[in-house]
Amino acid sequence: MDVSTFFLKLLILLLSAKFFAEIFARLKLPSVLGEVIAGVILGPSLLDVVRPDAVFHLLAEIGILLLLFEVGLETDIGQLTKVGVQSTLVAVTGVILPAFLGYYFAHHILGLPFIAALFIGGTLVATSIGITVRVLADLRRQRTKTAQVVLGAAVIDDVVGVVILALLYDFVSTGEVSILKTLKVLMFISLFMVLAPVVARFLSLFIGKLSDTNKTKGMLPTLIISLILGMAVLSHEVGAPEILGSFAAGIALARRFFLPLAAGLEHYSHGLAEKIEVEMKSIIDLFVPIFFVVVGASMDLRVIDFGSQDFWMAALGLSCVAIAAKMASGVWVKGGWNKKLATGVAMVPRGEVGLIFAEVGKKAGVLNEVMYAVVVFVVAVTTLVAPLALRIILRREDGDSTT
Amino acid sequence: MDVSTFFLKLLILLLSAKFFAEIFARLKLPSVLGEVIAGVILGPSLLDVVRPDAVFHLLAEIGILLLLFEVGLETDIGQLTKVGVQSTLVAVTGVILPAFLGYYFAHHILGLPFIAALFIGGTLVATSIGITVRVLADLRRQRTKTAQVVLGAAVIDDVVGVVILALLYDFVSTGEVSILKTLKVLMFISLFMVLAPVVARFLSLFIGKLSDTNKTKGMLPTLIISLILGMAVLSHEVGAPEILGSFAAGIALARRFFLPLAAGLEHYSHGLAEKIEVEMKSIIDLFVPIFFVVVGASMDLRVIDFGSQDFWMAALGLSCVAIAAKMASGVWVKGGWNKKLATGVAMVPRGEVGLIFAEVGKKAGVLNEVMYAVVVFVVAVTTLVAPLALRIILRREDGDSTT
Repeated sequence: MDVSTFFLKLLILLLSAKFFAEIFARLKLPSVLGEVIAGVILGPSLLDVVRPDAVFHLLAEIGILLLLFEVGLETDIGQLTKVGVQSTLVAVTGVILPAFLGYYFAHHILGLPFIAALFIGGTLVATSIGITVRVLADLRRQRTKTAQVVLGAAVIDDVVGVVILALLYDFVSTGEVSILKTLKVLMFISLFMVLAPVVARFLSLFIGKLSDTNKTKGMLPTLIISLILGMAVLSHEVGAPEILGSFAAGIALARRFFLPLAAGLEHYSHGLAEKIEVEMKSIIDLFVPIFFVVVGASMDLRVIDFGSQDFWMAALGLSCVAIAAKMASGVWVKGGWNKKLATGVAMVPRGEVGLIFAEVGKKAGVLNEVMYAVVVFVVAVTTLVAPLALRIILRREDGDSTT
Repeated sequence: MDVSTFFLKLLILLLSAKFFAEIFARLKLPSVLGEVIAGVILGPSLLDVVRPDAVFHLLAEIGILLLLFEVGLETDIGQLTKVGVQSTLVAVTGVILPAFLGYYFAHHILGLPFIAALFIGGTLVATSIGITVRVLADLRRQRTKTAQVVLGAAVIDDVVGVVILALLYDFVSTGEVSILKTLKVLMFISLFMVLAPVVARFLSLFIGKLSDTNKTKGMLPTLIISLILGMAVLSHEVGAPEILGSFAAGIALARRFFLPLAAGLEHYSHGLAEKIEVEMKSIIDLFVPIFFVVVGASMDLRVIDFGSQDFWMAALGLSCVAIAAKMASGVWVKGGWNKKLATGVAMVPRGEVGLIFAEVGKKAGVLNEVMYAVVVFVVAVTTLVAPLALRIILRREDGDSTT
């Protein structure tokens, strides 16, 4: 791509994202929805100005890393573990139910072959953690207990989604599934989830010291970005999604994190958390919207044949399955039905992982064009509708915001 | 490129840049040199970890835009125009002399054909504005009068370099040169240089208002980046280098800029300049080193056959021409010989534009492998040696820092 063309596209992307986000925010709707819609408009679906090609894709990936880092920064690991059981139950239900119901619907009602139906089940598994946390933040609910349960569940759900994708991919290409390998991956990931924040916290003490004595400009943001990237790469190496690494880095650098075995070193990090928040703020705010625009641009609605009855039957049916199955997962949350409902709805958006899943399925020859279009439709519906629904539900229970 | 591989490469790039920059700064040497050397080490010359491919190239281009924006922010347009005549004389001499001597040396001494010799002359024209301003900033001299002359000269020189490149390219591909077209381009560029800061200032008043009333996060950095990108694209459209646009945006947003005809609106910009500096700081500090690492990585020293006598004769001869011709341009600066010398030496680094020039020449079949290697050598020598020489000269005349 020509440099000047790239600059122009980036400019259009940034301005459109801000424009639609601002309009949505002024309408008291989640601004993330504005960014996704900006992506749909700019993407191949309509104007075809911004394609999710290599460069924008990589910038978007930096955006989602930074978002999860920011979420981690604001997370109290103590509170998160307190709701750990609820989160795990929500996540596991939110994985098994959509996978099974999706498979069942595709195989027994749509009559798809076994493997294709498995893939359809797979596309319904992973909640779009990005959309979910941004909606909660946009609605200023990220510190509520419901949000903590959702966050924990979305993280676990994302990990399980990636593991299942790898499993399915192996199954499609080799015809078998290695339980041993899967268990090994899960063990590595668990180990990573426990150790990564500790390692990151140790490194942050070192970063804090370095950034006090440096002779060059920009030491702190460069080292923090490096830490985030490093954790993301490590996370990928153990078989987990990259965002798990940046989330771990965020948790480790949060104010509310106690480093086991190194309480004596903790005085170094006084003030560091605040400095990190100040210096990282504009970088995060700049990159995060790129991710959501690219999510919108990745949903190529042109693949959908809106006149086809087959399409509508499959698309509406699968959308109902996708929504109902995730909503049911909220049943494990303690509290009133409104809380259960809010949690379930928050888990509904699918977004990028579903699309990747569908793309892998299409390339492997497992999903045909129609079923690929159906998945794109389901991803679009869940991504666009859930934030609006959540907004209505959360407005009804304003008591929740203080618990 | 795989996402995780990209993250790893970016991580290595950022950490190496900071590491070498910090070492150079602690040795009281310009830290930019550390970043370029990090690029040489990481690039194809040695480790071949970071190639200046599409993504890194585009990130680097954002880096140089931001650097010129920052330089613009710190520039007093009044002071810059005061030294305008000196800058122009330095720039014009620094364009004509290297072009002519380079051509003469290549044609009459090395015996190259006419067009190849023209290209060699062309590669010696453009001062690397990035290296030059960073060295002055690293040595904390960016506010001196010498620095103002150098800055003005480097900007003009860059514009003229791009125009000459376009001219030469036309000549090589069509066999003729359109004086009329060139004059038109120069007129457009002059018009842009006068109007762009005024337009950008008007827009900044609007940006200031918007960022006070916004409902979403990150309004200010997003709009500022958009302004920089927009000005860069406009600049490219009129035929000037993109960095002229971001420099104009910086000048327009500086504290010391008076907007003609709109003094009444100026109260909006109170405090805006400071807010811009705070919010843009970490973004700028993050991106700028990527540019210099990519400059280093672009110098593929493997193309050089260090055992060849022909190579050494051409390379050393052309290096002398490249250095002497730019140094002579400092003669126009008012003040002692030390100031003239400092200005001349500051104009010596060639860097990226010279490499682009050589690349175009190689692809057009005008420059052979040996002459391409010679140009890479000259670019490397001028880029690496000039900062060191400038450091020595500036230390000798410490009185300059207050004038």
